[in-house]
Amino acid sequence: MGEHFTIVPEGSITTPQGFRAGGLHCGLKKIERNDLGAIVCDVPASAAGVYTLNAFQAAPLRITQESVALSAGKLQAVLVNSGNANACTGDQGEADAIAMRDEFADALGIDRMLVGVASTGVIGELLPMEKVRAGIAGMPATLKADGGEDFCQAILTTDLVQKMTCVQLKVGDAVVHIAGAAKGSGMIHPNMATMLGFMTTDAWIEPAQLHQLLREATDTSFNMVTVDGDTSTNDMVVVLASGLAAGGSEPLTPAHPDWDAFVAGFRFVAEYLAKAIACDGEGATKLIEVSVQNADNIDAARAIAKTIVGSSLVKSACFGADANWGRIIAATGRAGVPVNVNTVDVRLGDISVLEQSRPVKFDEELALAYLKGDQVNIYVNLNMGSASATAWGCDLTYDYVRINAAYRT
Amino acid sequence: MGEHFTIVPEGSITTPQGFRAGGLHCGLKKIERNDLGAIVCDVPASAAGVYTLNAFQAAPLRITQESVALSAGKLQAVLVNSGNANACTGDQGEADAIAMRDEFADALGIDRMLVGVASTGVIGELLPMEKVRAGIAGMPATLKADGGEDFCQAILTTDLVQKMTCVQLKVGDAVVHIAGAAKGSGMIHPNMATMLGFMTTDAWIEPAQLHQLLREATDTSFNMVTVDGDTSTNDMVVVLASGLAAGGSEPLTPAHPDWDAFVAGFRFVAEYLAKAIACDGEGATKLIEVSVQNADNIDAARAIAKTIVGSSLVKSACFGADANWGRIIAATGRAGVPVNVNTVDVRLGDISVLEQSRPVKFDEELALAYLKGDQVNIYVNLNMGSASATAWGCDLTYDYVRINAAYRT
Repeated sequence: MGEHFTIVPEGSITTPQGFRAGGLHCGLKKIERNDLGAIVCDVPASAAGVYTLNAFQAAPLRITQESVALSAGKLQAVLVNSGNANACTGDQGEADAIAMRDEFADALGIDRMLVGVASTGVIGELLPMEKVRAGIAGMPATLKADGGEDFCQAILTTDLVQKMTCVQLKVGDAVVHIAGAAKGSGMIHPNMATMLGFMTTDAWIEPAQLHQLLREATDTSFNMVTVDGDTSTNDMVVVLASGLAAGGSEPLTPAHPDWDAFVAGFRFVAEYLAKAIACDGEGATKLIEVSVQNADNIDAARAIAKTIVGSSLVKSACFGADANWGRIIAATGRAGVPVNVNTVDVRLGDISVLEQSRPVKFDEELALAYLKGDQVNIYVNLNMGSASATAWGCDLTYDYVRINAAYRT
Repeated sequence: MGEHFTIVPEGSITTPQGFRAGGLHCGLKKIERNDLGAIVCDVPASAAGVYTLNAFQAAPLRITQESVALSAGKLQAVLVNSGNANACTGDQGEADAIAMRDEFADALGIDRMLVGVASTGVIGELLPMEKVRAGIAGMPATLKADGGEDFCQAILTTDLVQKMTCVQLKVGDAVVHIAGAAKGSGMIHPNMATMLGFMTTDAWIEPAQLHQLLREATDTSFNMVTVDGDTSTNDMVVVLASGLAAGGSEPLTPAHPDWDAFVAGFRFVAEYLAKAIACDGEGATKLIEVSVQNADNIDAARAIAKTIVGSSLVKSACFGADANWGRIIAATGRAGVPVNVNTVDVRLGDISVLEQSRPVKFDEELALAYLKGDQVNIYVNLNMGSASATAWGCDLTYDYVRINAAYRT
């Protein structure tokens, strides 16, 4: 798969043709920062979403799924609030999510089933709907072609940085863009981390195809991120495809000669956002990337990669710049999949520490210097089959404990 | 099941009839503390063990399993070292574990297959066998009827306290004792936590019955403890039953009228040790006990209890005395088992915070005071079926990060 895409400098979710975005402060956050944002397309766009597997799925996720289902895979707008998750809020929460959808659709003058909604923030408190209603009324006036940053700010909680990227590539004669924005793992009183992702493209692609593409890309990106192993009630990723790229003549399918290039660009955006979320994990000082190679099958490779990157002991060792390969091996062995205990190689960056399951003498000073960097790459080669997977996470630090212990007291 | 047992004050693993124990410093630990210990029975005892599910099982575990298998479920002695795990040590590690077994058997003048061995400490380094050999030669002289504490000290690593208990009860006319000692979750360069448990009893009980009893008791005790979710390569629990209790006339089976009382005592000892391990988890300031009630089935109850007690966010909230029930609900929802999202009650001690999945107004000051105590009990009532389970863990603290990040650097 050739990577024929290029990154668009300062590109955002409004770079693809047909998209505007905006954001404003309606009062859900105590500080004067945007807390309500929207992405709007000039036309009904092909749409697909993936949603948390947490049993306690928040109300807006159910409403967005309903919209996508009842509009045959189309959305024209997405409205997002931060500061309140609208989760564990019962019938009133459901009614509030519906009100957000319907009132924003009415303000835009479009069909109600063409609007999706998302929320992130406090669990178990009702949305202050007067504030939200005032925000919705003001939202259309904020929408603009360069409103990507305003939107991005509106979806952040305790995130330290905005997370946004855009690539472009040729599909036939058309120049196609793929963009994304995300919020990561911030903690809000009294809630858990929530991951929200929004992608836009001006490629012409049918909803069913878009959904499959999103699912596959999510499996190798968002679903391979672990900050603390706690799956939120509000996680979702939504993609809108406007089909408005100049020069497009037929919808994109796997039969198209440029399909692979498009998939590569799409995955790059998803993976970029996933890594950005891991980097900005609570208290994180460094990104940890774990690559498991030559596993029996892809599920085994993913399970081991996620177990290693999620291990509190591995995370602590990375924080302390400790070349503690015993912890990597122990995590490999408890991932719940069969491994050959005699054939494992482990590398930290370029430093080999285990070969064929035998310890290798390595230069401790060199390892310390490597582990003190702001990215640690761990390679585990099982030498069993040919499946590989990569997972991303961050180190476990004093600040993680401080952020999550001291918030309310 | 009536609890007809009583705790024996200052009882130890040598309180049951027929057992002696001892410990000495042979040089595996840098500090002058016992690092080699043994339990020896006057006669071949019925024996059973449970072992880590980590794929990278350490050499001594394989050797102990071999001994128990080849002696038809009998052991007369167990030799344990701390300071070196003898894990990921290849063929030489296996030879060293065999040498520990054989040389201790020879020193005692008993059959080699009547000796079990266990190790805890550094992964990936060979045992310094001259030191171990010198220790084995001196071990028989240290064995005594009140050697329980010497043994207990020999198996500790960074544990802060010794973990030991003993109960007695009547079985028919006999006074029977059940005792246990354990080491918990300490961190050793460059290794992960290891849990070792040793139980002794003077009841007369056949190996197969003893094995089943140990497995069942382990499922509700040792297997319900989580400190950081990292399963060691060296975990094991071994029980020896001497059958030497005064007055015993027939072996104990479920048909015996006092079987239930014996099981209750056995479970008490296992649970006592499990809780002691959780309490003494690295950096812990408090014990967390999670009880899940009225689940559909026992596997679901256990999965949810362990997910909650293992959640970094719940653990951080307990450290910060934050009544953050959203995190408890989120952990409940991601445990991988079906739950009715409309019927959940949550209590912190006596303080109800969620009823039928609806938030309850509670006194924050009262909750803060409760959560500042040295034990936090979390009750989650699913109101679905009739299965219950309890899990134990500890809070996530700055000290956990310090211990595990700063060890080598």
